[in-house]
Amino acid sequence: MALVVQKYGGSSVADAEGVKRVARRIAETRRRGDDVCVVVSAMGDSTDELLDLARQVSPLPPARELDMLLTSGERISMALLAMAIASVGLEARSFTGSQAGVITDAVHGRARIIDVTPGRIRDALDDGHVAIVAGFQGVSQTSKDITTLGRGGSDTTAVALAAALDADVCEIYTDVDGVFTADPRIVPTARKLDTVTYEEMLELAACGAKVLMLRCVEYGRRSGVPIHVRSSFSTKPGTTVTGSMEDLPVEQAIISGVAHDRSEAKITVVGVPDSPGKAAEIFEAVAAEGVNIDMIVQNVAATTGRTDVSFTLPKADGARAVERLTAIQEHVGFAQLQYDDQIGKLSLVGAGMRSNPGVSAQFFRAMSSAGVNMEMISTSEIRISVVTRADDLDLAVRTLHTAFDLDSADGEAVVYGGTGR
Amino acid sequence: MALVVQKYGGSSVADAEGVKRVARRIAETRRRGDDVCVVVSAMGDSTDELLDLARQVSPLPPARELDMLLTSGERISMALLAMAIASVGLEARSFTGSQAGVITDAVHGRARIIDVTPGRIRDALDDGHVAIVAGFQGVSQTSKDITTLGRGGSDTTAVALAAALDADVCEIYTDVDGVFTADPRIVPTARKLDTVTYEEMLELAACGAKVLMLRCVEYGRRSGVPIHVRSSFSTKPGTTVTGSMEDLPVEQAIISGVAHDRSEAKITVVGVPDSPGKAAEIFEAVAAEGVNIDMIVQNVAATTGRTDVSFTLPKADGARAVERLTAIQEHVGFAQLQYDDQIGKLSLVGAGMRSNPGVSAQFFRAMSSAGVNMEMISTSEIRISVVTRADDLDLAVRTLHTAFDLDSADGEAVVYGGTGR
Repeated sequence: MALVVQKYGGSSVADAEGVKRVARRIAETRRRGDDVCVVVSAMGDSTDELLDLARQVSPLPPARELDMLLTSGERISMALLAMAIASVGLEARSFTGSQAGVITDAVHGRARIIDVTPGRIRDALDDGHVAIVAGFQGVSQTSKDITTLGRGGSDTTAVALAAALDADVCEIYTDVDGVFTADPRIVPTARKLDTVTYEEMLELAACGAKVLMLRCVEYGRRSGVPIHVRSSFSTKPGTTVTGSMEDLPVEQAIISGVAHDRSEAKITVVGVPDSPGKAAEIFEAVAAEGVNIDMIVQNVAATTGRTDVSFTLPKADGARAVERLTAIQEHVGFAQLQYDDQIGKLSLVGAGMRSNPGVSAQFFRAMSSAGVNMEMISTSEIRISVVTRADDLDLAVRTLHTAFDLDSADGEAVVYGGTGR
Repeated sequence: MALVVQKYGGSSVADAEGVKRVARRIAETRRRGDDVCVVVSAMGDSTDELLDLARQVSPLPPARELDMLLTSGERISMALLAMAIASVGLEARSFTGSQAGVITDAVHGRARIIDVTPGRIRDALDDGHVAIVAGFQGVSQTSKDITTLGRGGSDTTAVALAAALDADVCEIYTDVDGVFTADPRIVPTARKLDTVTYEEMLELAACGAKVLMLRCVEYGRRSGVPIHVRSSFSTKPGTTVTGSMEDLPVEQAIISGVAHDRSEAKITVVGVPDSPGKAAEIFEAVAAEGVNIDMIVQNVAATTGRTDVSFTLPKADGARAVERLTAIQEHVGFAQLQYDDQIGKLSLVGAGMRSNPGVSAQFFRAMSSAGVNMEMISTSEIRISVVTRADDLDLAVRTLHTAFDLDSADGEAVVYGGTGR
């Protein structure tokens, strides 16, 4: 008898039919003999509808009250799910994040989980009940106020609960079949991975793969709970995120997949005086706006005594960053700002890259043969990322996928975790 | 500087405009220098919408989960109201029933308040904030589960909080101007009462006056908090429920008003053997169905050795009671059951009745002169109630209102609390 934590997203419980379908699925797991703890998101678009109401009464709603408002969404879906489970003959009890012991810091709207003390969940499971927990929410350790975890919060709730309960697996039910070697909408030959390491999944998530959020994978890696990403519309196994790169057999795959991201823009600060502290002034200014920058490239100044600094950032933060930098132009003494939101980011991720020095050469050769220009390059131990023109991104993804033998058609690709091809 | 508890019902906060209007009203009170604690109901029809969702997923939703579901309604309205107050420049904090310290028993759907420990509310008020509290809900002392208080629950929350906070007044904002001498839709000359005692209000509420629920008035009487019922659409004073009959000046009014009720039906059990225990068998059977009976009349048996027993009960419970009684007909040995849902109940309430023995004679004379037949009669120290044909009810109400000089047109009516005529 295993303990399974299952997480269902808003699209799985978008209406009464969806809630009932999920209830039947949970019942199947329970009747198989497993203990089941379920984390659920708000129904379909209900969070957006609540946000719309908030905007109608206040131009800038206080964050504490916005969290109070939004957490009602999961309250509704979890109670309905508990009712639906009861109506198929099982006992279920629903719990808010606070009741489930999800303790967070006090940063409303994007709180971090500090601790999980799931005493009431364990009691419910011991009583043979299905425990339903509201995703995305917790309670502040200091203020005792209700908090939300921000984007991907329900996945994080699920993995954190699974860790605290010492669950055998955390199943994340979603509307795709698992983690793919590339986005199947761009690469029709992309294949589902059966397993992938936490480290690779972290890189994929950070580089634009939307199936799992970074924070949830980080939590999984720290706790060692296997995360099984699978479809709520089929019973086929999905992708299990588990294991460390250190444990990979040497002969295993080089590359796990290609990720891409269209959500970033590029700012180039032209003609920065090449003296100590100038880069710091620029990035401190951007950081003061709360903007997360991603890639940074600085060319060493040659004879001019000036240098260009380029970095990427979320498009949504572009206007704020430009405004702030413009305000300090005179003080820093740079010549000009260039803002470019027509870029794409392309990343190749694979644990095997560490011991295969030829990967980056093969990467650049493929880009060159496809005629794709690379504007920025950044690498980690298991990842190579480049910035291209937005218009070149699809071609670049397909080219890389083929160049690294990831296509399913050839039947010969060696992909880490590809045992279930 | 006073401490005011204000309660706004669902119709006052039915949409974003309503929420903003209520926020402005609260701000006026706060800016006058008073501390304000607000209790708010769910928006408009949102509770019905949630009930509808529940029915879609389960034919018989578990009560615990139904409470979890329904309490999201107040969570939404209270957060929106806090936002709206913030946007007019004041600080506000919203609290669930549980956070506000509303401790109840564990009877889901109609929990009773056991205690109120409003520590967080007091802290918020001490910080100069407006405290917003979700009405209708609390937390069970034993199970720690979320409970709802049932019909009129938000009014009860407000009065209970006012008592626990030792507030100067509890203002109940509603869609009528206050408590009237009769329903103005039936009696156009009905007048608003400026004040009425708790005892009279209890009788009026029990006899069909819908403006305040019985439980809320009971709580007010026990704690002595004045309850000011007033319109959320005007700034005119409404009716204040306060004071004991014991404190009334002798020369004060005889009658405070006429109440009526169309929601009851009458069951007559014909030919009951006149032996000890037969009435008990009948009423035990009805009580076992959870039916609250109201008036009871039994005629003493004369020579037949048999008697007729009549009682009134909510129409909604009629079918169940009839079914149960039919099942025990042979055992009890009565001859026949009569069910009649075409009745009306009419009540005259007034603290001065106690020292005016002529009131009932005047009552019956008025009915007689109007040609209204009285089928059942029941009285308390400060109330006379009769059952009439449903078709006679409006005429009976108007006749009584005039007979006891309650009409506003004559300008001479002596009504208790009529100081503000």
